[in-house]
Amino acid sequence: MRITRVRRADGTVAAARIEDGTAVPVAEESRAPMADAVRDLIAAGADVAALAPTGPALPLTDVDVLSPLAAPQKIICIGLNYADHIRETGLDTPERPLAFVKTAHTLAGPYQEVPVPAGATEQLDWEAELAVVIGAPARDVPVERALGHVFGYTAANDLSARDAQFADGQWFRGKNFDAFCPLGPWIVTPDEIGDPQALSVAARVNGRTVQDGSTKDMIFGVADVISYLSRYMTLCPGDVIATGTPHGVGMGRTPQLWLKDGDVVEVEIGAVGTLRNTVRFA
Amino acid sequence: MRITRVRRADGTVAAARIEDGTAVPVAEESRAPMADAVRDLIAAGADVAALAPTGPALPLTDVDVLSPLAAPQKIICIGLNYADHIRETGLDTPERPLAFVKTAHTLAGPYQEVPVPAGATEQLDWEAELAVVIGAPARDVPVERALGHVFGYTAANDLSARDAQFADGQWFRGKNFDAFCPLGPWIVTPDEIGDPQALSVAARVNGRTVQDGSTKDMIFGVADVISYLSRYMTLCPGDVIATGTPHGVGMGRTPQLWLKDGDVVEVEIGAVGTLRNTVRFA
Repeated sequence: MRITRVRRADGTVAAARIEDGTAVPVAEESRAPMADAVRDLIAAGADVAALAPTGPALPLTDVDVLSPLAAPQKIICIGLNYADHIRETGLDTPERPLAFVKTAHTLAGPYQEVPVPAGATEQLDWEAELAVVIGAPARDVPVERALGHVFGYTAANDLSARDAQFADGQWFRGKNFDAFCPLGPWIVTPDEIGDPQALSVAARVNGRTVQDGSTKDMIFGVADVISYLSRYMTLCPGDVIATGTPHGVGMGRTPQLWLKDGDVVEVEIGAVGTLRNTVRFA
Repeated sequence: MRITRVRRADGTVAAARIEDGTAVPVAEESRAPMADAVRDLIAAGADVAALAPTGPALPLTDVDVLSPLAAPQKIICIGLNYADHIRETGLDTPERPLAFVKTAHTLAGPYQEVPVPAGATEQLDWEAELAVVIGAPARDVPVERALGHVFGYTAANDLSARDAQFADGQWFRGKNFDAFCPLGPWIVTPDEIGDPQALSVAARVNGRTVQDGSTKDMIFGVADVISYLSRYMTLCPGDVIATGTPHGVGMGRTPQLWLKDGDVVEVEIGAVGTLRNTVRFA
């Protein structure tokens, strides 16, 4: 089952299953602050595959496919989780999962333009990542039960202003410009994913492949990361964990490659789908 | 005007003005995930001081005073923002505001116990901070207009597991255990605060004063911080900015002082009020 959020031509937003190239709305989203119809279905433990439609199925060409989540409580990112990526950064291999955060204001749709404020960065980089969406709350969960807390998987682009990231030391600012977390195009449930440690993780810039990895090369796998984080904090329904990026980011290339105005950056996760975002500098 | 969230004896939660030692409920909070009656009033631009009560005024002794916000989109913390605190940490003075994040799962009420998971930290520290609550959305706001985007002020204790914080380099994990952000006891509007750069910032552990500073000693003041952050990201109604802590945290003392089971840590911000949280190690 695949689910995301879509905006119809009349401006209304719904949680929708993706079936046969159409969006089947199954829950309507209010216009309240922090509304998120998909998060609320997950939190309610709804059997999303069985929900009756709340309106007609619409061709995907007739809707805007939005970020599958609008306001999760947390978007936790794992840094330096692939050995070949660690080599290209020149940083040390972490002894445990290295967590940092994006907040919900960074979420962007899978095909949305990413506007970059004037003068804010000269080193805009991409990071293709498998993202995990939490289902049942997780608190102090052992590794062997951790995958039972996964609602589904999606694709994330952990956009990063490297100059801001490394100027601060703390990565928050450089990772948290508005729209710096394209997500989607939908959440795919585990039954359609198979082994989450056997998925391709690729990125392309203007059609040229720049990242071409596999989740099999993660240092800390999905179950390890969930179990580890849950020792310190409660993971909530709809929380997102972006699991790190493989080799091939712009900062690690010779010469370095930074995104510029009009560039199209794609992130493709096997068994999930593809994000395609155009960068627009002010 | 002072506003917070309270839980009545019957379990219902409301946004309430604090008037004459009573809680006057002015908006009821749903039980939905990420519900936050105070955030929603701020986002709606409600004239909170003029709202009609939704129920009888209750003595503060008859309600649980909760965190004044339950689910803001962002809780941004400014690190190393007082010169005397920078000296005690041995870290470098930032050239610009240094931002990191707590997420909403860290919020705790002003008088709530803080449970610490077994084996998770041996270096639990406090940080007394003035916290700013954003009113109108702020995007690329000049310094001279920044305070116009403040809804009010409150007190925060930026609890920090120093071993986890510095083991990772990134401060997310060590700052984001459940309940690591006691907040409150209420939000005070600017008309009752006066100059936000002339407030006392104090902490006590088991009654002994350990921090005794003033917001006049901030390196980057409230207006500077809001303006700066808004260059990179949209600040939303209800967002919290904890503005850093003065000298006197446990890690900077000789010998170092870490919170232990049963310790009572208080944070008092002038013109706002006092948080009083007991630490409970599992």
